[in-house]
Amino acid sequence: MAACPNAQLLKNNLKTNPKYCFRFKNTENFPSINTLKPSRAATKLISITCSTATELQDRPPAATSSAAAEDRIFNFGAGPAVLPEKVLRKAQSELLNWHGSGMSVMEMSHRGKDFISIIEKAEADLRTLLSIPQDYAVLFLQGGATTLFASASLNLCNPGDPVDYLVTGSWGDKASKEAKKYAKVNVIWSGKSENYVRIPDFDELEQNPDAKYLHICTNETIHGVEFKNYPTPKNKNGIIVADMSSNFCSKPVDVTKFGLIYAGAQKNVGPSGVAIVIVRKDLIGKAQEITPIMLDLKIQAENKSLYNTPPCFGIYICGLVFEDLLEQGGLMEIEKKNKKKGETLYDAIDNSNGFYRCPVEKSVRSLMNVPFTLERSELEAEFIKEAAKEKMVGLKGHRSVGGIRASIYNAMTLLGVENLVAFMEDFKARHG
Amino acid sequence: MAACPNAQLLKNNLKTNPKYCFRFKNTENFPSINTLKPSRAATKLISITCSTATELQDRPPAATSSAAAEDRIFNFGAGPAVLPEKVLRKAQSELLNWHGSGMSVMEMSHRGKDFISIIEKAEADLRTLLSIPQDYAVLFLQGGATTLFASASLNLCNPGDPVDYLVTGSWGDKASKEAKKYAKVNVIWSGKSENYVRIPDFDELEQNPDAKYLHICTNETIHGVEFKNYPTPKNKNGIIVADMSSNFCSKPVDVTKFGLIYAGAQKNVGPSGVAIVIVRKDLIGKAQEITPIMLDLKIQAENKSLYNTPPCFGIYICGLVFEDLLEQGGLMEIEKKNKKKGETLYDAIDNSNGFYRCPVEKSVRSLMNVPFTLERSELEAEFIKEAAKEKMVGLKGHRSVGGIRASIYNAMTLLGVENLVAFMEDFKARHG
Repeated sequence: MAACPNAQLLKNNLKTNPKYCFRFKNTENFPSINTLKPSRAATKLISITCSTATELQDRPPAATSSAAAEDRIFNFGAGPAVLPEKVLRKAQSELLNWHGSGMSVMEMSHRGKDFISIIEKAEADLRTLLSIPQDYAVLFLQGGATTLFASASLNLCNPGDPVDYLVTGSWGDKASKEAKKYAKVNVIWSGKSENYVRIPDFDELEQNPDAKYLHICTNETIHGVEFKNYPTPKNKNGIIVADMSSNFCSKPVDVTKFGLIYAGAQKNVGPSGVAIVIVRKDLIGKAQEITPIMLDLKIQAENKSLYNTPPCFGIYICGLVFEDLLEQGGLMEIEKKNKKKGETLYDAIDNSNGFYRCPVEKSVRSLMNVPFTLERSELEAEFIKEAAKEKMVGLKGHRSVGGIRASIYNAMTLLGVENLVAFMEDFKARHG
Repeated sequence: MAACPNAQLLKNNLKTNPKYCFRFKNTENFPSINTLKPSRAATKLISITCSTATELQDRPPAATSSAAAEDRIFNFGAGPAVLPEKVLRKAQSELLNWHGSGMSVMEMSHRGKDFISIIEKAEADLRTLLSIPQDYAVLFLQGGATTLFASASLNLCNPGDPVDYLVTGSWGDKASKEAKKYAKVNVIWSGKSENYVRIPDFDELEQNPDAKYLHICTNETIHGVEFKNYPTPKNKNGIIVADMSSNFCSKPVDVTKFGLIYAGAQKNVGPSGVAIVIVRKDLIGKAQEITPIMLDLKIQAENKSLYNTPPCFGIYICGLVFEDLLEQGGLMEIEKKNKKKGETLYDAIDNSNGFYRCPVEKSVRSLMNVPFTLERSELEAEFIKEAAKEKMVGLKGHRSVGGIRASIYNAMTLLGVENLVAFMEDFKARHG
């Protein structure tokens, strides 16, 4: 260990701050992790790197640190997912008395000036993050993206109108099935037979010029397939409808390319119970007669999401997240961080000599959900069990596909990804 | 003051604990409130009573008291409404790390064992509170009661089936209008022409034997009309559907009298964003084909409210409230407290020689929402303004009816009601 410039730092940190994480740049030069860490349970996985700057940035300010925080784990769950600790701390400090109002946000009238200021700021900040033009309405609704599966065709189609669905994963598939109740659905391409590992060449697609819209799911949470660019809609109205639930606000998006964008908040921007809609105002107001009033986007837009009582606390948390994303420099900065996290994890998989394997075509690999399998699939359960001991949870692949899935949304720090990669290398060293 | 047994107590409390509230039993014997309280802004409204036991019980334990808590106000809003301070404190303490899980409830997978334990306990506790039999499903949904307006007929009727609606306020009226999209609605009685001040003699009602159900709203939040007993359904299936949003869990209810009960949580049992459904299992499974899957109660029941991601944090808060209601002794005890609060406030109105007036027929006055007007309506704005200075807010009547409305849900303490009544007496003394 004497040769290691970080040996002392490492020793100190083992004592003083077991949460720090260092990664070996060159494993050969150093003793194995196990010799450094007699009791796996006692501390986090320890490894060494010479650049801890990023990790340090990723840590919450020491001033706000607490026992509770030190005990927090790395949550790789697909959603509901990890939220910024900073946001949780703010919500915690304001929980009984928001800004001197004498009440919790959970207790406020949704029509009072306090909550109105909260929802208006949330909308304004989201408009800034995504440069949403004024001819688009921004709505905070309930029922998740699954409710929007129905709302899309109920609001944009007359009964039986043709619509095109490009199906690149389970969620796009579910969306197309729900739409069949209200429109004539044509699945113009589906990756199902190939287990959803790619996105087709857009020129292959036979779009229907009479379709009311082309529907895509920009990131498939279960299969880890993400659109890096978007097809040009060939329908007369030039409308794309996009379910952006699992990569919403993870990178800049040109909203004007879309007629309707919808997303459940519980991946990148908030808790479950809030669904965000961004819709071109000229497209709404012609909902089918059978549309439940709560699913009528025109009614919701006219009432600024307050036709009935909205999910106030969830909207408040989304607002805190938007604030945090702006403070981090906006979505271009967020995208840089997400790319770095994604590269780090995919490199670990691709450089494992097949010990770890990601089935998804490299060009469309998701920066949000990273599914992978182990060459020896019998080791997957052990991998998940040992990772949990290292305080890394939520790694089990979706029950429909199995394997491992690491979701690395905005709020997952590079520190967390480095920690996972170090564990993967360690696990491979012990089982490879 | 020498003659007053509470003089010293009062003086001490002015210094040591301005939050205590005492009520005059006999105002004549004591100097006016203002002489006791030179600066209205400096302390809360002070009055004297000889029995402070209840008030003391109503206060949070000193141990958990904090600056934030001392600053909390009396929230008479109609919903979202005041929550038990105890519940908010627990949520605050667990916000970053629920039961050592290392994450917030907002970050948990809805399919993980931690959240499953939360939702299962919430359901179990609610079943205990309302003695819900096993042949009824309990669901935690989204979209508020307004979404359930549609779900009721979509799930219980074939298109065009007749249904009876008994309309005793704005919410029953809204429910009947939404149902017209999916069923043949017959409004068998409406109090609209009388501005909703009464409930008819049930024998007057001409129910349709072929109706699929009889719909009622058991407590009209805006008009303050509450069912004290329920009509016997004359339809062949003997089904009553009840919107219980604003008096849910405020008293015991014989669930078996109803086919479907639904309620937004944001009045008595939680934050907004959660809608609770109690439905007889044999009635679901025949939803209309056009039913959005999220509104299909059978799908939700089969999936134990987890067909998609539910509003996890809201359900968790509801669970904490249910726990608190059980600790208070269950709904019979809660009803006693609510009756005491209601009597206290209605007495103040009825004994004001017409200075304050409640338009609702005494036999059906709501114990949850108490609407009243001032004889001199020009004083109402002043009343609301002065009350706010005394840290009593949310008293403005609904924009559709005006006047004053004091909502005194489960979490509003008797202390709060006593405080309001003392203020009303003071206001009358100064303006009467």
